Parts: sequence; structure tokens; C-alpha cells
Amino acid sequence: MATLTAPFISHSFRSTKQFSRILHRSSTHCVLNFRLNNSINCLSSTRNMSDAATPKKCLEIHNINPNIKTMEYAVRGPLVIRAAAIEKELEQGVKKPFNEVIRANIGDCHAMGQVPITFIRQVLGLCVYEKLFDDPSIPSDVKQRARDILNGCKGGSLGSYSDSTGIEVIRKHCAEHIQRRDGFPSHHDDIILSAGASGSIKALLSLLRCDIDGKRPGVMVPTPQYPLYSATIAEFDMEQIGYYLDESKHWGLDVVELQRAINEAKKHSAPRAIVIINPGNPTGQVLSRDNIEEIIKFAYKEKLFIFADEVYQDNIYDPDSKFYSFKKVLFEMGAPYNKMDMASFMSCSKGYMGECGIRGGYCELINVCPDVKAALNKSISAQLCPTTVGQACIDCVVYPPQPSEPSYDLFIKEKQGVLRSLKERADMVAHTFNSIEGFSCNTVQGAMYAFPQIRLPEKAIEAAKKASQTPDTFYAFQLLEKTGICIVPGSGFGQKPGTYHFRTTILPQKEKLKEMLDLFRKFHENFLKEYK
Amino acid sequence: MATLTAPFISHSFRSTKQFSRILHRSSTHCVLNFRLNNSINCLSSTRNMSDAATPKKCLEIHNINPNIKTMEYAVRGPLVIRAAAIEKELEQGVKKPFNEVIRANIGDCHAMGQVPITFIRQVLGLCVYEKLFDDPSIPSDVKQRARDILNGCKGGSLGSYSDSTGIEVIRKHCAEHIQRRDGFPSHHDDIILSAGASGSIKALLSLLRCDIDGKRPGVMVPTPQYPLYSATIAEFDMEQIGYYLDESKHWGLDVVELQRAINEAKKHSAPRAIVIINPGNPTGQVLSRDNIEEIIKFAYKEKLFIFADEVYQDNIYDPDSKFYSFKKVLFEMGAPYNKMDMASFMSCSKGYMGECGIRGGYCELINVCPDVKAALNKSISAQLCPTTVGQACIDCVVYPPQPSEPSYDLFIKEKQGVLRSLKERADMVAHTFNSIEGFSCNTVQGAMYAFPQIRLPEKAIEAAKKASQTPDTFYAFQLLEKTGICIVPGSGFGQKPGTYHFRTTILPQKEKLKEMLDLFRKFHENFLKEYK
Repeated sequence: MATLTAPFISHSFRSTKQFSRILHRSSTHCVLNFRLNNSINCLSSTRNMSDAATPKKCLEIHNINPNIKTMEYAVRGPLVIRAAAIEKELEQGVKKPFNEVIRANIGDCHAMGQVPITFIRQVLGLCVYEKLFDDPSIPSDVKQRARDILNGCKGGSLGSYSDSTGIEVIRKHCAEHIQRRDGFPSHHDDIILSAGASGSIKALLSLLRCDIDGKRPGVMVPTPQYPLYSATIAEFDMEQIGYYLDESKHWGLDVVELQRAINEAKKHSAPRAIVIINPGNPTGQVLSRDNIEEIIKFAYKEKLFIFADEVYQDNIYDPDSKFYSFKKVLFEMGAPYNKMDMASFMSCSKGYMGECGIRGGYCELINVCPDVKAALNKSISAQLCPTTVGQACIDCVVYPPQPSEPSYDLFIKEKQGVLRSLKERADMVAHTFNSIEGFSCNTVQGAMYAFPQIRLPEKAIEAAKKASQTPDTFYAFQLLEKTGICIVPGSGFGQKPGTYHFRTTILPQKEKLKEMLDLFRKFHENFLKEYK
Repeated sequence: MATLTAPFISHSFRSTKQFSRILHRSSTHCVLNFRLNNSINCLSSTRNMSDAATPKKCLEIHNINPNIKTMEYAVRGPLVIRAAAIEKELEQGVKKPFNEVIRANIGDCHAMGQVPITFIRQVLGLCVYEKLFDDPSIPSDVKQRARDILNGCKGGSLGSYSDSTGIEVIRKHCAEHIQRRDGFPSHHDDIILSAGASGSIKALLSLLRCDIDGKRPGVMVPTPQYPLYSATIAEFDMEQIGYYLDESKHWGLDVVELQRAINEAKKHSAPRAIVIINPGNPTGQVLSRDNIEEIIKFAYKEKLFIFADEVYQDNIYDPDSKFYSFKKVLFEMGAPYNKMDMASFMSCSKGYMGECGIRGGYCELINVCPDVKAALNKSISAQLCPTTVGQACIDCVVYPPQPSEPSYDLFIKEKQGVLRSLKERADMVAHTFNSIEGFSCNTVQGAMYAFPQIRLPEKAIEAAKKASQTPDTFYAFQLLEKTGICIVPGSGFGQKPGTYHFRTTILPQKEKLKEMLDLFRKFHENFLKEYK
């Protein structure tokens, strides 16, 4: 079994493959076991087959896409697989020191008890079940909205395919929303609706797959980052160019570090794009307007396409922070910046609505060449269209009830209720973690996560090494087995060598969150005793 | 402007790139204009930018993924773009010889007036809008079904993420359905739910991207074929190995032709898989059990992974035809065939439900190595999960109301009503086309399309050449401009050199279809007069 050397993440990943190899090596005991077991299964099944004079399988682990073998998506990785297995064990009556698994690994609001927004669900209800139009308890503005959406569907049904870029009236609502938000023009032909933000992020990353002067295309991605990016970059065999966020400055983004990372990367790759997650996932920071200007200037100088991942734009908790869209800043900066091509992404999975399973999202293409846009549209057309229900959902988000409308008061009450509660929980999480010995946690200015640093005792690091796990993964597995709390180790997002973190969501409802944090504190105290 | 030489599709495509290049060259006047205009726009915008001392765009047509540039998806190609433009013109009051565009290009049932199945929409309505549980007019079995689905969702809400492979209870229903259908075991761990069938087809094709002994992976695909396959194979830079269906034998599949195609392909690629579309799209044939056995033996001998695209399994109109699933035949054949790894695909977009926009589907992995399955599951996990509403929809399809349940009678009435009407329309289309001079059309045994052959006069072929179009594309554009009928030229699916076809759906409602076929006949008579 591979031994693990920490610090295991090099300062700049020489190549995605290398990074993935390292990540893979750092995979937990569990994943190694899992894979070994699977390989044994497959080998034995093929052995049995050859016994019966049958050929081996057509698809075996050695002859499938190597990029898929190396890619990792930590948010759904081995810890989560183990968490699901523990849930099954609990169901079957296996005794554990806890009664339930607390899934703090993924930003899944409704799973943690958040109640859907009435306006959204009423509109979706009418759109899929038209008999509801006869229900006098449904407000008139909901009916009007559902009618507008259905009128935008071919045959008046959500069951028909939409354009690959989405239903026109909804794209118009997106463009109007962006224009209101930023004060700059937006056109619905530049809007692409997708299944969550992930769908269009992947489609756009795919456009970049073009060697330049014999060099692999590179994408700058924050460290720590949301692993959709590392997974997709690995799948596409592109170069992940990690730039560090500065933990000592509230996970701020420093242009000097951007420059260091790109200079290093240019030796062997062709940097094409930069990903900015604002508010930050997993780090919860909110970028200042000045910082955004600096990043835009850097991207301009280096000719990088900007991926502005702005899915948490409604999740700002810090009273001194404000969300500025990259588009707004870019346009306010004037020439030459206001001609740069970039894209911004939004989702209905986050914010106050948290409609993850419904899969709605949009992407705005800003200043993108028409023929590049046509190629992108063509590339998504073979998958026909994003779910129309997801499209209807994002419509409700970009065009919520207006003050004069009957649904307005309830909508605002529900929206503000969720956001207020999230702010309380954001404060509670950071505050509690900072009160635990060996923890330090930046303020959660926005988004839905805390990413605290933990100092681990030398003995624990050695025990992790023995278990062929990274120390943070070792810690997370211990936590899961002893308390049922499921978090994601920092190594799944990337972190500075020799530092250890984890990501937890702030999403358990208040009482549950308190309980979780108490469990956490007790676990950590015991852990320190055990490994001191 | 490129001149076009017909016959333009070589007997066996030497490489996907070559095929795509040829397809690209054959693109219509419209697409060429479209691209040229776009290039001009982009050039002029970059010219203006350099005037203002700004750099060029980061993404330009010359530096994006070349595979995306070459891929084509004819069902949403230039004809459809033109059809949408004509619709806008009609809206704006532009005078045309017709009042509406008839979109016979895409299998989009609801767009053509098909009414949703009540049971499905009631279940979806309850799932998204829980207040409906209080409605006494909703039958108890619908409520029970919706409750079962919601109980399978984390937090009891469709708004939470499901497992990447889908909600467990729905996968169980899929497995039970398959087991009932085939009489062989099926396990929910082998079921992957996806957004339509396209999502899982693409994910599985992606697994094949692995050079073998320095040769590009090849996928055998029928000619004519559904262009999802050619588009995805091109995007993944794999080799498309076309095998011809035999038009003179009801678009039958001949193993001699399979052998010819694979022998040819082996010279420069590594064949890995074979795609079978049964019932056929665009060709409407239903494979016999014997034919399926032969194909399985061929796949076994050549070690090909079988993609059984069975999304039209409910659409059988010919009284002498019957649907046999590949899995059933494979298992009935016994050893060594019953150990072969393959996948079967199903969708809620077709059949009697036609819920295209909802995006539901499933894939069953049969005899697939556990570690390959784990890699596949990992590869889809970064996109989080397929839409939960689409999952709920496929649940209704695999587990419809039972005879003892209150929804049963209405469900059966609606289902049989749709299928009976589709059968009438299938007959009407083939019959009418066969009565038009120069047309010959096989019986539409199944699926939703007719793919008639048209003999075009020499003068029309010359006119097409002058317009830089393939003759069938030229014909289709003329039809669209003069009648508003939108079909897809055969070249978008592939056809034997020197033959010309088109695909039309059989989906316009009966009166509309009659009208369309009348228009078609008149157009063709005039076309023949004009080019005789």
C-alpha cells in the first residue's frame, strides 16, 4: 500500500495528472480498500469467466479513460461513501455512539431541513400540473408567472424540449435581472440556462481544450477550490494552475500570488483562463471591489478568460462585505477592460432557495465572440436542453415577486428568514471553532461553508501515515466514525503544505448545529488526549 | 466558398475528423453564411478593439477546442436555426406562403400537441408542491407514489441533491421493472438515472476514451444514425465506424456489413463498442430476436461493448414486430454471452409519455466490472445529480399504476390512446410518401420517424451544388421556405453515397399531419416540375 508523505501538495501543481496522482495517493484507507476490493471482484469475475472459456470484459479498469481514473470529486468522495454505509448500518440496527449521520459535507439546504420558498414551489406546481390553475388559493401573480413560462414552451408544455440555451422568456428575465443588478446592458442571447451552474461551467471549460504552441491549456484555480474545477480539468486533461488564497488575510486574493502561479505554469503550459469563486467556496470570503479590479487587470494583462463563479451572490453575512459582480466592475472600469470576454455563473441551488435537486442555473457570456458562442451552443445542443423545471425555477429567482404583487410579502418574509438564520449560523460556526483548542477559523463572510485550520498533534500525523491517509482525512474519518458528523478534509480542496483544514457547511438547522458543534468539541478534546 | 462534391459521404469514415470535415463542408449555404457573418462580426469587433489598443478576445474561433468546431448535431442544425428565424418573421408580420412552421425535425411530442399523461403530472405536481396532498381530487395511489418518492429524498424534498446515480427507491423501481420485463435479475446498484438517456450515453462513451496499442478507440454506429452519437464521438475525438443498415430489407442489420465495417476500421483504430438503436432512429425498424442474437455473437467475437439504445421500446406499431431487449436475449443465449458487459438506455422523452423537457432517463449496466462502475459513478459525481423531477418522471414510467389502483383506468386509456394514434400516423406517413412520385418509404415499424428515400432530378442536384449544399439539404431548405415544414436532411444522419433521404417525425396531430403531407406532395410536384 502506498505510503504517504506530507506535505503532499506541491506549491504549484506541475500537472493535473501529477496533482491527481498525489490526490489519489492521498486517498483514504477506505478508498484504497474500496478499490482493491473492487479490483479483486473484477479480477475474480474475469478469472471465473476465463475458467468458463469466456473472454474478459470489454471495459476493465486498465482500458478505460485514464483521465476519469485520476479525477477526484472530494465532496462526494470516500468519506461520503462511508457515511452512506453508516446510515445503512444504523437503519439495520447496528449500535453506534450516535443515532444519525450529520451530513455537513455538501451545500444541500433542503436535506438539512430548510423549507422551500412557497412562491417557487407554487410556480413549479402550476407549470407541471395545470389543473392547479383552478385552485383559488394560489395567488394571481403565481398564476401569471406560470402562464408566462408555459406560453414560452412549445405546445404550452414543460414536457417539450426548449432551445438548447433555454426558454427565451426565461433568458429575457435573466438578462433583465442582471441589467437591474449591475446597471449595464444584458441581452438574452448571451444567456445560457443549464442544469445548475455545473452544466455550463463544464461546457465552457470544454471550449478551452486547445493546445497553444504545443502546450496544454491551463486554468488558474484558487487553492482551496471547489473540486468541480479540479475534477473537470482532470477529466479534460488540462493543466490546473493553483493559486493560493491568503488564509491570514481572510482568504484574500493577492495578485502577487497570481503572478507567481502563472509564471511557474507558463514554463510548461498555456494559461487560458482564471476561475474566481466569489463569495468563496470552501473559504467563505467576499472579494472587495478593489480586489476584483486588480484581478481583472491581471486577467487582461495575461489574456485570461474569466470564469466568475458567483453562485453565492445572495449569501453575504458580513455587514462590511458587499457582493460586486465581475461584470459590473469590468464595465465600470471602462476601456480597455470593458471589452474583455468572460462568463458569470449563477445557480438556484444556493442563495436563500437552495433548490439543488431541481437543477437550475444560468451563465452570462460577456463580450464573447459570436462564432465562439455559436460553437458553444452547438456543443450543448446534442444534449438537447436543460431540464425545463430547472429553468422555471431559475426564472423565479431572477424575477421574484414585486412589491405590488400578492406573493411579495410572504416571499420576502421567507427569503429574509432563511438569510437571517444562515447569518446566525455562519457566526455561530466561526465563533465556536475559534473557541476550540487548536482550531482557527476565518469569519464566514459569505457562501455556506467554514474552512477552519486545525493543528494536529505529531502522533496523529504519524497514525495517519500508518493508515495511508492524509492527516486531515484521518481526522475526518475518526470524526465520522465516532460522532456521525461528515465533513470534507481540506486535501479535497487543496491547502498549503503542512496545514490541515476541513470544510463544513453551516447548513444544519440551529439546534442541530449547536448539537453538532458540541459533539465536535468533545471529539476534538478526546482526539487531542489520544494523540498527545 | 467550398464547392461540394456528391456523393460526399465515403463508404466507411476513415476518421471522425474526416467525417466531420466532410459534414462541415456539406453544411448548407445558411450555415456557411451564418459562420462567415459571425467571423466578420468577431473580426470587426476585434479590429475595433485593436483600434482602441485593446487585445483580441481570449476565446476566438481559431483557439477553441477543435473537436467542438467539427462536431455537428443535425437535429438542431442550420435548418432548425432558419425555421426559428422564419417563426420570428411570421410573428413580425412578414408575408409567407404559409402561416406557421411545422416542426417535424425533432421527436418532441408535447410541442406537437400531445397531452401529458395525467398520472405523471399529478405525481410531479405533488412532489414539487406538497400542499396538493390536501386536494381530495387527487387519487390515493398518486399520493402514495409521491410520498414514496419524497421519502426517498434527503429532507423529504426534491430540492435536495440525490445520489449521483439517482434516488435509491426510483432505481429500485427501475430494476424491478426490468426484471418483470425480461425475467432476469436486475439490481438497483446497476441503474444510473440521468437527464434523458443522452446524459448517461455521453458518460459511458467518455469511459471509452483510451487509446489501445496507440490506436484511437472506435465506436460502431449505424448509418443512418441518431446524431447524438456522431456529435459525441467527434467531441471526444474518437473514431466513428459507420455500418450501413439495409434499406432494401426494412433497414435491417446485416452481420456481413458489420464485419466489413469493423475490418476496414481495424486498419487504423481500435473498435471498442457497438451502438444499436432499437427501435431505430431515424429508420423506424424493429430488430428481430434472431437479428439481435447475431449482433450479440458478433459483439462477443469482436469484444465490443454493446450500447443498446432502447428508448423507443414502447413505440412498436407493426403487428408482426415485437420489442426484445438486448439484455433478455443475451441472458437467454446463456454462456458465454450472458457474461458480456453492456448497457441499455431508456428515457421518459419518448414512448407514450413524451416528457422531453423534464429530462428523465435511466441506464442499466449489465455485467460491468465493479471498478469500472465506480469510475463511472465518480465521473458523473462532479455534476452532482440528475434533476430530481426527471427522476420522479422516470419512476412513473417504470412503475405505472397497477390494475387494482384508482389511477389505472385513466392511465391505460391515455397511454393506449397515444400509442394507437401514433400507429395510425406511422401508417399514414409511410403510405402517403409511397404514393408520391420519386419517394420510397419503409414501413414505420416503431419509434417516431419515417426516413424516406427521394430520387432527385439531375437539375436539382446541380442547383444544390451551385448553392454549396448537399442535394437533400437543398431540398429541405426549399421545402422549409415554401411550406414551413421543417425536416432534417438524410446527410445529417448518414446515408449511402448517391442516395437522398430525410427524416420526418410522425408527431403532428392527425389533422395537422394530413395537412403537412398534402403540402409536402404539392411542394414535391412543383419541385419536380421546376427541376425536370
